[in-house]
Amino acid sequence: MSKRYDIAIVGSGPAGLSAALNAKIRNKEFIIFGNKNLTNKLVKAPKINNYLGFFGLSGENIKERFQEHLKVMDIDITEERINSIYAMGDYFALMANEKIFEAKTVILATGVEYTRPIKGEEEFLGKGVGYCATCDAPLYRGKTVVIIGHNKEAEAETNYVSEIAGKIYYVPMYKGSYDLNDNVTLIEDKPEEVIGDLKVKKLVLNNSEIETDAVFILKDSISPGQLVPGLKIEEDHIAVDRLMKTNIKGCFAAGDCVGKPYQYIKSAGEGNIASLSAVKYLDEISRK
Amino acid sequence: MSKRYDIAIVGSGPAGLSAALNAKIRNKEFIIFGNKNLTNKLVKAPKINNYLGFFGLSGENIKERFQEHLKVMDIDITEERINSIYAMGDYFALMANEKIFEAKTVILATGVEYTRPIKGEEEFLGKGVGYCATCDAPLYRGKTVVIIGHNKEAEAETNYVSEIAGKIYYVPMYKGSYDLNDNVTLIEDKPEEVIGDLKVKKLVLNNSEIETDAVFILKDSISPGQLVPGLKIEEDHIAVDRLMKTNIKGCFAAGDCVGKPYQYIKSAGEGNIASLSAVKYLDEISRK
Repeated sequence: MSKRYDIAIVGSGPAGLSAALNAKIRNKEFIIFGNKNLTNKLVKAPKINNYLGFFGLSGENIKERFQEHLKVMDIDITEERINSIYAMGDYFALMANEKIFEAKTVILATGVEYTRPIKGEEEFLGKGVGYCATCDAPLYRGKTVVIIGHNKEAEAETNYVSEIAGKIYYVPMYKGSYDLNDNVTLIEDKPEEVIGDLKVKKLVLNNSEIETDAVFILKDSISPGQLVPGLKIEEDHIAVDRLMKTNIKGCFAAGDCVGKPYQYIKSAGEGNIASLSAVKYLDEISRK
Repeated sequence: MSKRYDIAIVGSGPAGLSAALNAKIRNKEFIIFGNKNLTNKLVKAPKINNYLGFFGLSGENIKERFQEHLKVMDIDITEERINSIYAMGDYFALMANEKIFEAKTVILATGVEYTRPIKGEEEFLGKGVGYCATCDAPLYRGKTVVIIGHNKEAEAETNYVSEIAGKIYYVPMYKGSYDLNDNVTLIEDKPEEVIGDLKVKKLVLNNSEIETDAVFILKDSISPGQLVPGLKIEEDHIAVDRLMKTNIKGCFAAGDCVGKPYQYIKSAGEGNIASLSAVKYLDEISRK
């Protein structure tokens, strides 16, 4: 049986990190999923002057401070991408590519999805469109698969699937050099629409078309509504109350994913609240 | 005519400071009321490890960082105690001891009142009990006045009133040396109850009683409901939505005064939200 954590935190931006600090201080068994490099958005910020106590620092400088803080607190980020989270009653099952993690509470700190869905993406979701290529790869043994990658991590997933699929295309949504197996066909073109009938039939790009059985879109983050079935969404954000509770018992959320303004200190503050709410919830269920 | 600010921030804890940073960055005309020494609660905290980016620092260290941040941003704290705030329709009137300030929006960041009211205090409020001795002093010319002081600043107010009142007693609620005029009688005893009929008649202390016409209680902060008539309070805190709006148009609130958890980073995050909400509100009314 796998270990059951008290708290699973999904996301390593300011909201997730702030939640982790409190989980640590409150002595809870927790795991935080994300990127050891924290968040790209943070790294890209030129100068931040409204994080009380920090001034004249770039996003990169602040990132280093945050990483140092994690280090002295002995907090490690687990580099797994969570693809779905299921409320199982008294615990949550968090599905990573090949693993399942269990936790009594979940704190969603997934940020905002800036990637607009392409035409047909939502319509064909589960009918050939997916967000986890490695999860569904066995279904496409010997078949044709297109992977639209929004970040470098998608390349490893593509290479893994290339060993199973019959034909595989990789469409990168970022610039750079690509570490792809020889049997992966690189397509540098802009995806426009997924077309099919009962199932996906092809992907239309700006200058080309690919006939395919599956289209996997590997984004930086999955929209929370897709990540956690049954989660209440309001105006594109996770609905929370002032204690950062979502509509699902034991599931909390913080940061950009719960709404504007998109600000580091706002996210960090909410991460703190979410974490303390999770701690309180854990105390309550342990007393039952 | 007095200057009308865009934003008046009441309180110099993390919520108020964070609000001030954003008001400054957004180029608004603002004023922040509080204490140049920030907040006593902050100064007293032994070690804070859950303010993301700071670790191993004492409250005193963090206070210095905050003060440095204010300095580089050229933000000055106005040392006036606001005694009441009136919503005047399209602006707010903020009453300090002898001055009136005007602002289009108000951000309440007054912290939490840890001082429990003494018996009879609420019953006789406005009937001899008051929170601003200098404001009401003219009513007690030649009469007897007791001042219960919760901080050193109350001494100056007591000395001012001593020039008007017939007889004046000072009951300090803190230890230290007291800079009082010669005609002020120092009473080192614990106030228990205000007694009267239509008006205050006496103050009962643990070991003594004082017959008096007025009892002024000079606390670190006035409860928000008394500070802003008409403000909606829920479970002892200012009721706000997730954008830090109170029930009064143009009036926002942030920090401990809006609810638990009482945490610096939570307060700073909320100050950020409140300030950006005020900025948005100002933009909206200027477009009308």
